[in-house]
Amino acid sequence: MSKNSLTKTKEPIYLDNASSSPIDISVINEMLPFLTDFYGNPSSLHGLGRKSNLAVSKARRQISKLIGSRSNEIYFTSGGTESNNLALIGSARLICNLKPTCKRILISKIEHDSIIETIKFIEKDMGFEIDYVPIEKDGSIDLDIFREMVSTKTGLISIMLANNEIGTIQPIRDMVEIAKAKNNETIFHSDAVQALGKIPINVNDLKIDMMTISSHKINGPKGIGALFIKQGIHIKPIIFGGGQEMNLRSGTENVIAIVGFGKACEIWKEKLASVQIKIKGLQKYMIDRIINEIPGSVLNGSMENRIFNNVNFSFSGINGEDLLIKLDEYGIEASTGSACSSNKKQKASHVLKALGLTYDQISGSIRFSIGYQNTQEELKIAIDALKNLIKEFRKINGNSFA
Amino acid sequence: MSKNSLTKTKEPIYLDNASSSPIDISVINEMLPFLTDFYGNPSSLHGLGRKSNLAVSKARRQISKLIGSRSNEIYFTSGGTESNNLALIGSARLICNLKPTCKRILISKIEHDSIIETIKFIEKDMGFEIDYVPIEKDGSIDLDIFREMVSTKTGLISIMLANNEIGTIQPIRDMVEIAKAKNNETIFHSDAVQALGKIPINVNDLKIDMMTISSHKINGPKGIGALFIKQGIHIKPIIFGGGQEMNLRSGTENVIAIVGFGKACEIWKEKLASVQIKIKGLQKYMIDRIINEIPGSVLNGSMENRIFNNVNFSFSGINGEDLLIKLDEYGIEASTGSACSSNKKQKASHVLKALGLTYDQISGSIRFSIGYQNTQEELKIAIDALKNLIKEFRKINGNSFA
Ligand SMILES: Cc1ncc(COP(=O)(O)O)c(C=O)c1O
Ligand SMILES: Cc1ncc(COP(=O)(O)O)c(C=O)c1O
Repeated sequence: MSKNSLTKTKEPIYLDNASSSPIDISVINEMLPFLTDFYGNPSSLHGLGRKSNLAVSKARRQISKLIGSRSNEIYFTSGGTESNNLALIGSARLICNLKPTCKRILISKIEHDSIIETIKFIEKDMGFEIDYVPIEKDGSIDLDIFREMVSTKTGLISIMLANNEIGTIQPIRDMVEIAKAKNNETIFHSDAVQALGKIPINVNDLKIDMMTISSHKINGPKGIGALFIKQGIHIKPIIFGGGQEMNLRSGTENVIAIVGFGKACEIWKEKLASVQIKIKGLQKYMIDRIINEIPGSVLNGSMENRIFNNVNFSFSGINGEDLLIKLDEYGIEASTGSACSSNKKQKASHVLKALGLTYDQISGSIRFSIGYQNTQEELKIAIDALKNLIKEFRKINGNSFA
Repeated sequence: MSKNSLTKTKEPIYLDNASSSPIDISVINEMLPFLTDFYGNPSSLHGLGRKSNLAVSKARRQISKLIGSRSNEIYFTSGGTESNNLALIGSARLICNLKPTCKRILISKIEHDSIIETIKFIEKDMGFEIDYVPIEKDGSIDLDIFREMVSTKTGLISIMLANNEIGTIQPIRDMVEIAKAKNNETIFHSDAVQALGKIPINVNDLKIDMMTISSHKINGPKGIGALFIKQGIHIKPIIFGGGQEMNLRSGTENVIAIVGFGKACEIWKEKLASVQIKIKGLQKYMIDRIINEIPGSVLNGSMENRIFNNVNFSFSGINGEDLLIKLDEYGIEASTGSACSSNKKQKASHVLKALGLTYDQISGSIRFSIGYQNTQEELKIAIDALKNLIKEFRKINGNSFA
């Protein structure tokens, strides 16, 4: 393969921020004292214990401010995956006990694996019935279809705020209103892992009962997440023990990561508005250039209703994974479909399938996700490389676009 | 209260290492690059992803070396609590499906809350019967009683290797042999959170099927633990999603903490033998002085069969919590009972109850747990303070020992 104008860059151009994002330097600085000095167990009564306990409380406040909740509505977990599990299994356990006639759950076809797989468990082991809302060609949910699918037996609904592969934002507030009009007892949960820090979120405006967020997608550390649970909504724990997190999530608190998560939220609260403008510009630059300069490219997802950091394209006649590996050789790091799944190689994206894409389009897809550290210069290099690589691949394959 | 010769120390004298321990400086240094530079998601195919993936594999090897397992027998979780939950609920789910006639579980009366509370869930929600092995006056389990309690219906046994409050070490290997002789299908799990780094552990010698360990008790970071599962033993997941950890524990891996946990294990592998001698000496110094110099003091647990960092005393006529708070004012940090429980204030220790202690003895108990950073000089200050404070308390209360 000829290299054209490409040169391997030393520092990778990281365009996979939706998989995991670099930790902000202020976040690191906030975490450091808890690595070196403040190692107390928040449940201990002594000075070091209280220090940790206070730090956890502070983080709870910082997080609640970003999403407009009260701080006692924030429950820490080990990440977005666990928060989703807690929200679904925790509600399902409650429904089994208290509302056995409401053993029906509604989710969309494009939820993250941590929803999809948890739902399969609830269906199989807990005897629930599951309804899957289809999505439109642009990744959005049709509210009329949604309305039809909510029944008085629907005890729980879980619809993600923004999709991790194609970035589509769903009209959650409208859905909550529709659902509660049909059945005021329905619990509404939303996975906002990819929406946090990308769009302004206020849980009261959204009117949701529970919401999942994760730190490592917003320049905080991995291994920490939270579940917002509206005051008055009760669910059951899925991990039992010492009774931490107001008895909902036992286990010694991950203080270092909690402190980092809190700080990351504080930062995003301050700079969401300004960062949004910058990244939106980069996103537009990337989408426009790809559409204009790379033949046989189709943007997956909605043009308008999209979080500002997501760029997902299908390239006709291209294998996305081959492209990814080649891009990586040039120091450009991106993703095919969801990178939050450890066995993504074996299976085609259920999100792109739900969009109605052909097999060729699915296997030819690639996702770039932009972070605030990225520059237009980096994107220029990435797009140039992409353009040349696709041309080369098509030449080799004798594809008509070559 | 007069202060006698006490002066408030600036740096606390931290004698609560069993609650959580300071992170070793080499562990911190190993973690730092993953805070600043290597933020890839281990499931991503690109360079930063592979870097994270390799780091996770390395940690798995470091941990397996400390416990004598293979590295593919190590499954990461968010901590000891989750590992215990996974071991118990994961086995119980399997037993329900495959061996419904073995829905009996045997545990001891002095297990950690993350076993006790999980067992209550399994009993109530999954229809298991639970047998509780009593303990002797010194905290040990009588093997004859144990033998009688194992039945052919016992699908799962969980007995801790060392107790968190009184430090008693149980003869796990003998128990495994007794149990397997009665029912070769029984799964044997052991919570080794407090034993790791305190006694040499080899899972093959112990002949156990599963074992729980946690990083923050051995000078690694909080929020990370592991479950050892012997090859050939199958259990079901309790958290569902992207299929990480060989499909047993989904969720983006907590790379920073995993790296730290691995390093902490490497360090303990190297220095367990030498540290053991040092801390054992400190433990003896402390126990001897307290017994000799503080009237009305009784050592809880076994004198011989005890991990080397644990010192647990009951002081007649004293309220342990008051004592703790006063010690804290002098910069001496200790614990009453288990500090891994967030609501310990409300309930008396079930461990000390199981020992047969009186209410006075339970409420008058305090635990010191020594770390390798502690010095004899620190212990001297702590014991002097303890001695004086107890004298003062008894004077105020008009207690006979004063
Ligand atoms: C939409 C969505 N939900 C949940 C998760 C899981 O979060 P975590 O990686 O913190 O387990 C992810 C990404 O991993 C995600 O993109
Ligand atoms: C014996 C024992 N098991 C389990 C745990 C729980 O581990 P973690 O704090 O990592 O959740 C602890 C302490 O917290 C413990 O002492």
